[in-house]
Amino acid sequence: MRAFRMRDWQTDPVLTEVDTPEPGAGQVLVRVGGAGVCHSDLHVIHEFPPGQMPWELPFTLGHENAGWVESVGAGVTGLEPGMPVAVYGPWGCGVCDQCLRGVDTYCERQSEAPVERGGAGLGLDGGMADYLLVPHARHVVPLPDGLDPVTAAPLTDAGLTPYHAVRRSWPKLTPAALAVIIGIGGLGHLAVQIVKATTAARVLAVDTRAEALELARRFGADLTAEPGDGVTALVREETGGRGADVVIDCVGSDGTLTLASSVGRVLGDLTIVGLGGGQLPVSFFSLPYEMSVQTTYWGSRPELGEVLDLAARGLLQTEVIRFRLDDVAEAYRHLEEGTLTGRAVVTP
Amino acid sequence: MRAFRMRDWQTDPVLTEVDTPEPGAGQVLVRVGGAGVCHSDLHVIHEFPPGQMPWELPFTLGHENAGWVESVGAGVTGLEPGMPVAVYGPWGCGVCDQCLRGVDTYCERQSEAPVERGGAGLGLDGGMADYLLVPHARHVVPLPDGLDPVTAAPLTDAGLTPYHAVRRSWPKLTPAALAVIIGIGGLGHLAVQIVKATTAARVLAVDTRAEALELARRFGADLTAEPGDGVTALVREETGGRGADVVIDCVGSDGTLTLASSVGRVLGDLTIVGLGGGQLPVSFFSLPYEMSVQTTYWGSRPELGEVLDLAARGLLQTEVIRFRLDDVAEAYRHLEEGTLTGRAVVTP
Amino acid sequence: MRAFRMRDWQTDPVLTEVDTPEPGAGQVLVRVGGAGVCHSDLHVIHEFPPGQMPWELPFTLGHENAGWVESVGAGVTGLEPGMPVAVYGPWGCGVCDQCLRGVDTYCERQSEAPVERGGAGLGLDGGMADYLLVPHARHVVPLPDGLDPVTAAPLTDAGLTPYHAVRRSWPKLTPAALAVIIGIGGLGHLAVQIVKATTAARVLAVDTRAEALELARRFGADLTAEPGDGVTALVREETGGRGADVVIDCVGSDGTLTLASSVGRVLGDLTIVGLGGGQLPVSFFSLPYEMSVQTTYWGSRPELGEVLDLAARGLLQTEVIRFRLDDVAEAYRHLEEGTLTGRAVVTP
Amino acid sequence: MRAFRMRDWQTDPVLTEVDTPEPGAGQVLVRVGGAGVCHSDLHVIHEFPPGQMPWELPFTLGHENAGWVESVGAGVTGLEPGMPVAVYGPWGCGVCDQCLRGVDTYCERQSEAPVERGGAGLGLDGGMADYLLVPHARHVVPLPDGLDPVTAAPLTDAGLTPYHAVRRSWPKLTPAALAVIIGIGGLGHLAVQIVKATTAARVLAVDTRAEALELARRFGADLTAEPGDGVTALVREETGGRGADVVIDCVGSDGTLTLASSVGRVLGDLTIVGLGGGQLPVSFFSLPYEMSVQTTYWGSRPELGEVLDLAARGLLQTEVIRFRLDDVAEAYRHLEEGTLTGRAVVTP
Repeated sequence: MRAFRMRDWQTDPVLTEVDTPEPGAGQVLVRVGGAGVCHSDLHVIHEFPPGQMPWELPFTLGHENAGWVESVGAGVTGLEPGMPVAVYGPWGCGVCDQCLRGVDTYCERQSEAPVERGGAGLGLDGGMADYLLVPHARHVVPLPDGLDPVTAAPLTDAGLTPYHAVRRSWPKLTPAALAVIIGIGGLGHLAVQIVKATTAARVLAVDTRAEALELARRFGADLTAEPGDGVTALVREETGGRGADVVIDCVGSDGTLTLASSVGRVLGDLTIVGLGGGQLPVSFFSLPYEMSVQTTYWGSRPELGEVLDLAARGLLQTEVIRFRLDDVAEAYRHLEEGTLTGRAVVTP
Repeated sequence: MRAFRMRDWQTDPVLTEVDTPEPGAGQVLVRVGGAGVCHSDLHVIHEFPPGQMPWELPFTLGHENAGWVESVGAGVTGLEPGMPVAVYGPWGCGVCDQCLRGVDTYCERQSEAPVERGGAGLGLDGGMADYLLVPHARHVVPLPDGLDPVTAAPLTDAGLTPYHAVRRSWPKLTPAALAVIIGIGGLGHLAVQIVKATTAARVLAVDTRAEALELARRFGADLTAEPGDGVTALVREETGGRGADVVIDCVGSDGTLTLASSVGRVLGDLTIVGLGGGQLPVSFFSLPYEMSVQTTYWGSRPELGEVLDLAARGLLQTEVIRFRLDDVAEAYRHLEEGTLTGRAVVTP
Repeated sequence: MRAFRMRDWQTDPVLTEVDTPEPGAGQVLVRVGGAGVCHSDLHVIHEFPPGQMPWELPFTLGHENAGWVESVGAGVTGLEPGMPVAVYGPWGCGVCDQCLRGVDTYCERQSEAPVERGGAGLGLDGGMADYLLVPHARHVVPLPDGLDPVTAAPLTDAGLTPYHAVRRSWPKLTPAALAVIIGIGGLGHLAVQIVKATTAARVLAVDTRAEALELARRFGADLTAEPGDGVTALVREETGGRGADVVIDCVGSDGTLTLASSVGRVLGDLTIVGLGGGQLPVSFFSLPYEMSVQTTYWGSRPELGEVLDLAARGLLQTEVIRFRLDDVAEAYRHLEEGTLTGRAVVTP
Repeated sequence: MRAFRMRDWQTDPVLTEVDTPEPGAGQVLVRVGGAGVCHSDLHVIHEFPPGQMPWELPFTLGHENAGWVESVGAGVTGLEPGMPVAVYGPWGCGVCDQCLRGVDTYCERQSEAPVERGGAGLGLDGGMADYLLVPHARHVVPLPDGLDPVTAAPLTDAGLTPYHAVRRSWPKLTPAALAVIIGIGGLGHLAVQIVKATTAARVLAVDTRAEALELARRFGADLTAEPGDGVTALVREETGGRGADVVIDCVGSDGTLTLASSVGRVLGDLTIVGLGGGQLPVSFFSLPYEMSVQTTYWGSRPELGEVLDLAARGLLQTEVIRFRLDDVAEAYRHLEEGTLTGRAVVTP
């Protein structure tokens, strides 16, 4: 079968032929229907010098995957060939306290996981190929009616990540609450939709680009603003001086983090999702009392089912640009050049 | 001023003239803009023999009230004459553990409350009058922009009660969840809207009347059904056999409670809101494991603010039929005869 | 190896010789160190007519198990031969929403589980044998230092069940709270210890037997009482009239359930743990407002780790009476005759 | 009556004679039994230049108060002269969303509060006097049996503050959890006791002083350590490499915050209680995933009741050094010189 593989660090991957894998006991072979082209792959391709990551080369890229069950290994029940499925990408040990709760992202026995600090397309063969071998059936999620693999693929990461961030703040997202989403890109435009679909809170979307704010409004943002002092004033005005109950920073630069902390409310949440490399100095007096500052990373396996349900019912939309597997290198080139206006999905 | 007053038990109240009250320290006088005509008043009027309730006669009816601040007593700040406000109806002691959390409904020092087991229009003078004396400023909620007292009045009870019931189940109302609302009357049609506005769960509305189901669909119900064996089958089909995550019974008869318990899911919620007089026999094997069965009564003071916010933004709609205060007796007559197709509100 | 097996329904099991199993991929073979003798086995042995349970005969009894890893199948990591371990008994499908959260007890794809509505010793071979085959490594919990398999075995059920019941009520078990534990037998005396160890709530233990109340006091109960009207009065007096925040009924008869509901507080919890066959009629007015009535069944896999930690630190004690495997029938006879004053554990 | 009053900023207060206040409607006059001498008063006395705080001079110091009801104003029920009571010190508007939930500390309508950003002894007359006027009965908490005003006084702040910090982390403080308390001084030694009394988590106490660690052990700390690299190693070893579930930093310096973040676990809590002036740079990669960093300030009114219950039952102990009101200046001098080995309480 074809596979788009990392063969050396800091070197462009290559589409090549490899043997089609066979599922062992408890495993599932998935015929890939869609594999999302994600920014974080660019880090994997270009930035890691040999030895930095605990991963062996070669491996196939692609951590946002969906398709159809091709075959299952011994002991796997409930999955039939031909079933459309999405694949949960972070693959933990399955036995530690986190994995036992479906939170493979935070596996605390990395040395016992299929690969350390990775998963599909991250140290192990991913979905930029005709077939994907999933090491455990629990990572395979049947798609709800009305959702096809091409649409589902990017939701396993670009949808799941903001969903997880929003979900942790549900108790604070009352009808009287204001949520501020900073950065209306791939994750942010989904975050807006997720807040609107799952709560009655109002949303203020913040971005430097007019077209991003337009997109936010189209997906339901109640208010939009460009970053700057006006944001703080707007938030105070819209909340009777109290501040925003929840701030989700999908950028994560010094500037956005400062903005995020300045608009928050006592007892609020500030969640850092974006990998912008910024830093927020936290002290007793620098933040509203009891505003919880934390990061989130990807999401849990049960949450992925909820994200797919949202999308199947039309409550979570993302624009997909299809590329054939033979054109996968071109897809990454477009991503790198910033010429894509939606999520590229490779469709073997 | 005019006031519609209970003067004897099991006797029709009478519209009469009384002195306009003066607000004492910490109190607020509200010029009534709307006072909702509620079914529970019929119980108060007809069913209580002398001595059953710890209330002294006479008192003015009306526990769903909104209007404008007329004047405030010593020490009251933040409320100016002319401000449109809603009135939180259950008036507790203000000092017990429940009142301290804004849950006057469950006041645990009833003997220290303004009246035992009551509030506005329930043992103390209510809003079926030109003016309403509110015994403590914390019960007075400024209306958000876009909400007028006539619309707000019934929300203080008919909106707050289902809101409280739905809110307790938020953690279980994920996008993958199904909520079943039984009884699409005054509370139920608001419960449908509240689930849809504040969560991404799907809603199945159950009622015997086709027009009620039509109303439910108009307000966003995903599924509707008449009671009967078909409901259980439908729920199982729609949930992959798991059952409904949350069931809110706005009727509360033997039949609806049996239905409610038969469609539930393990770890689900069954909330009894309706006063239908039914009884559900609960045993270890009669319910799905860990399905929580409980009642709810009215709601908390902070929740009332959230309900008003929902309504101000058009997410919570109720049909209002206005009656002049001089026609208040007629409003109750219509209510008793069942000829109203919306919520009657008396507008002094 | 030796195994104590059900060969016919409603027929005494027999100690017999069977082949020692081999662990397949993902499985673990445990050399049994302790297997608890549980009352519910008596139901399995005597009460089920052929065809009632979806289980095939023969199978080995024993659902409370601990021992040492003997060998592991392909793909199992982190478990070495000789490691002392406990075995989580309820074995679900591993893939449904409940299993994904470690709650195999409530598996929602029973038809895909190793056995329907069962687990170790419940439809599948259990631990009343020299060796126990565990179908998935996630059910095997390494013992913390200081805990031996004989002590650990009964905790996997008799400890886990009350732990799960208490844990769901943690948010209500403040230092100002009163917990009432009804029935100070095998589960109840552990429930008392669990409330005392994990919260600062006070405990009132209720039982008909003076020696049970003495046991409760020894394990930290603040108050004890025999059932009757005096209990309600005592609870009211001790709580300033408010009632008990949490009631855990380890008996579950009509009488105890009535008592349980009569002593509860608004917003409290009433948890039914005991299988006494009783029924509680629930209506809008029969219970304190918002008291949540629910059952619980066994516990989750992550909770088992917490129970073992409690016991390893001496915070959870149970009296164990050892029986050799050759004397297993005698152990059940003693259990049936009620002559045991602790938990019988078979130690192969 | 006598009162110890701030008359000028950055000037030593003076014990002087003032009129005994009369309680107005809804108010309570308390005869002071104990008033805690708190470090934060030293900031008030020495550090604020005129104009920094929105407070008018003169006012009486003392924000940790308990005593006996002397008299009550109109409309106050449930409080009788002679009742021993504690006084909740932060006095908010009583009507905003936070005050309505009993969280006056985070009042969001400061301009409507009795004083802006203050309370008893903080901008308004406090308890370093023969009598204390409490502006609203809800701030007055009857003492449980077995607790005297002298013991209760410091608990209203030095007890309530760590209690609030620990309580927010209860869901994470399972029997398998490790809590690290940094700084075993006035708050820290109470934090140790509170974790031990209200959860089954283990506690590691960290301090530079051997006698502080000795104190921690006496109050139940399972582990103790001096700050340094050894702490991180110890935490990893004691938690199987996972890290501490909860870290409470009662110092708040750069160094302790760095230590706090380095020992945490994914999904853990880091709570900043100490006013040490330190700063923690937070970025996506600087902390364990989803570790929540936040401050806390004082506590809520319902929580104060729980703290007093803990103390009345002997679960929360603090060493008290009594000073007569005539010697109040001396008490502050001792505090400033650091020669006190317990909490100074002025006893008029």
